[in-house]
Amino acid sequence: MSEVIATYLIHDAKHNLQKKAEGIALGLTVGSWTDLPQLDQEQLRKHKGQVLEVKELDSSEKVNTYLGKEVTRGTVKISYPSLNFSHDLPAILTTIFGKLSLDGEVKLVDIEFSSELKQAFPGPKFGIRGIREKLGVYDRPLVMSIFKGVIGRDLDYLKDQLRQQALGGVDLIKDDEILFENLLTPFEERIKVGRVVLDEVFEQTGHKALYAVNLSGKTFELKEKAKRAVELGADVLLFNVFAYGLDVLQSLAEDEEIRVPIMAHPAVSGAFTSSALYGFSSSLLLGKLVRLAGADFTLFPSPYGSVALDRDEALKIAEDSLSKDQHKQTFPVPSAGIHPGLVPLLVRDFGIDCVINAGGGVHGHPNGAAGGGRAFRAAIDATLDGKTLTNASKDNEDLKLAIDLWGVSEVTV
Amino acid sequence: MSEVIATYLIHDAKHNLQKKAEGIALGLTVGSWTDLPQLDQEQLRKHKGQVLEVKELDSSEKVNTYLGKEVTRGTVKISYPSLNFSHDLPAILTTIFGKLSLDGEVKLVDIEFSSELKQAFPGPKFGIRGIREKLGVYDRPLVMSIFKGVIGRDLDYLKDQLRQQALGGVDLIKDDEILFENLLTPFEERIKVGRVVLDEVFEQTGHKALYAVNLSGKTFELKEKAKRAVELGADVLLFNVFAYGLDVLQSLAEDEEIRVPIMAHPAVSGAFTSSALYGFSSSLLLGKLVRLAGADFTLFPSPYGSVALDRDEALKIAEDSLSKDQHKQTFPVPSAGIHPGLVPLLVRDFGIDCVINAGGGVHGHPNGAAGGGRAFRAAIDATLDGKTLTNASKDNEDLKLAIDLWGVSEVTV
Repeated sequence: MSEVIATYLIHDAKHNLQKKAEGIALGLTVGSWTDLPQLDQEQLRKHKGQVLEVKELDSSEKVNTYLGKEVTRGTVKISYPSLNFSHDLPAILTTIFGKLSLDGEVKLVDIEFSSELKQAFPGPKFGIRGIREKLGVYDRPLVMSIFKGVIGRDLDYLKDQLRQQALGGVDLIKDDEILFENLLTPFEERIKVGRVVLDEVFEQTGHKALYAVNLSGKTFELKEKAKRAVELGADVLLFNVFAYGLDVLQSLAEDEEIRVPIMAHPAVSGAFTSSALYGFSSSLLLGKLVRLAGADFTLFPSPYGSVALDRDEALKIAEDSLSKDQHKQTFPVPSAGIHPGLVPLLVRDFGIDCVINAGGGVHGHPNGAAGGGRAFRAAIDATLDGKTLTNASKDNEDLKLAIDLWGVSEVTV
Repeated sequence: MSEVIATYLIHDAKHNLQKKAEGIALGLTVGSWTDLPQLDQEQLRKHKGQVLEVKELDSSEKVNTYLGKEVTRGTVKISYPSLNFSHDLPAILTTIFGKLSLDGEVKLVDIEFSSELKQAFPGPKFGIRGIREKLGVYDRPLVMSIFKGVIGRDLDYLKDQLRQQALGGVDLIKDDEILFENLLTPFEERIKVGRVVLDEVFEQTGHKALYAVNLSGKTFELKEKAKRAVELGADVLLFNVFAYGLDVLQSLAEDEEIRVPIMAHPAVSGAFTSSALYGFSSSLLLGKLVRLAGADFTLFPSPYGSVALDRDEALKIAEDSLSKDQHKQTFPVPSAGIHPGLVPLLVRDFGIDCVINAGGGVHGHPNGAAGGGRAFRAAIDATLDGKTLTNASKDNEDLKLAIDLWGVSEVTV
């Protein structure tokens, strides 16, 4: 049967998870059951939600008391027939977490889609393989850096920053997600200037880098804007999907004329994922759903930096981005607080199929953004060669300066 | 200066709200300040975020310890120049709560828009006055009822339910928000059948009611679907705005060909509002922002039912929906667990400019949905006449049955 199976984490002050689960399964589908005449039951059986599993969690596993109440904590799995909703994410989310999201301490931690239902979704247009082919890089994590302090600055300023970043050997350079349409550095001009700078760097050095420009503005203008961006030679579109909606991302991914990878930014998503009691799990939103909706890259807080995500959740995002599936793979991009000394940790945790993304860890380098990029590349080479960064830094000034400034976390890979 | 002012509720384990606020104001605008050369400061001054207020909250006001940590709790107000973002909600939310939403215990509780900036938003197309004109009802709260248990049912079933509800004297009847495009009761057929039934009831009884049909499906198909609905005679569009995005609501409200009121449903919004530490305040999302984006009605959990909202938050939603403003007023619709015996409370708390919305409180009436509607209308008449429901029920069998079943909360209005 085609269906979605939702897993909820529940804190129940009434201490009856089974009853709570039955109430959800009926309330979000056919409404009632035992009171229905036999004939109605026959008619409605194929629409009825089913409780598949109720699992009480050991109270020793985590503290069992929230907000001063004694609660029973557990997970429940409920299946919803695909017959009940149109096959789009707004309908699915409204069905399984519409009014339920307003009904006490319930967090939606996972959704499993039947493979028939998955076919209604595009997945990434390029995926990890397609992006690697664009860059010709197959055997190491990619490196990305972020424009810094660009609000109120002009095109020349951006141009210099872009060139410095590309010269350091990073593979991708992304707009700051808070850079919107503006008079000093308009969207189309950024793309044109970016194209020129990156082509020059390629001619001079043979190094290829991609620029992810921030696609922003009104929802119903995004497609035309994206197509114009492609015409002008944009490499990648950065998109603040959680300020719009997952279905908007999907529509962009489904449009065949938008022939560039899309990078999903987690801006605003913390409002939906941060609570232990409410909202969505990070891995569901930033892993499974953005991949289903068509993101080629997904940014998320790394487990190491100042804006840190729980390590298990971060690893689950990567797992859901990479798992064998009918859809292409999404590049996991652990972000925030990343510097070259963290590369061994990143490679241990995320392997080579990730993008190592840094802002301050590139721009704050004593040799400038180019030095920062070189330090990252050296750290990656050393790590993949099985060397410690401390050793490798003896022959690499940029890496040495980075380690002196930010430290290093050596691990055995 | 045109700007937005964001108010955040912060729980700071570092006990320095001023420093935290300064960090936010810079981090989300120009990036850094004191290190900048004089010339750069001059260039960037008009883009710089400003801390307007830092207010430590008395620890006696609410418990000051969350998740086992001692924290300093307070609100901070920060102003962001409009110059920094395009004038749309995705850009504004990304600016003021993009990466910040991922950065610890920060809740966005309010946004103030300068009146210049407000002009970029439509507000409701009809508003309370426009809806009252459609109905010819000016001097009492409206009553709305909700289709019940419609998944897996056919058009005849819906037709009967609609007729019964309208005959009881309710002013509005809304689709269940989990009823999507489906073979048994397709969107266009629901509109056509609904038109026929409501016109018949009007001819037979002189009572006018409006049917709010659920506008659903893929984002980029919504406008055409909405226009088709208008052509077919739809009265009102129900919209699960939080499963899509506020900017999608805005685009529907801005489209002049979509000449019907829009009813914003709070489905999924609990994921963004329920936590005391993270996300958005209910009043900001369900009050201020849906009005700005163009909702003519806003549904939210009442403070009385099983799915209950904090009373102050519920009142704030109504306040933000009704406040004197350059935009029209949005009808507040306190919902969930509403029965006729709660009408005195509702009128005391929300006045006459609200919609009293009930599902079980209409359909569960011993005289059926028509009896439920009549009971609500009688409860409203009595309350506005200054009578207790207990007294009024002596002359009204429907009201008496409702009170016997669900009880009554008498208050002095």
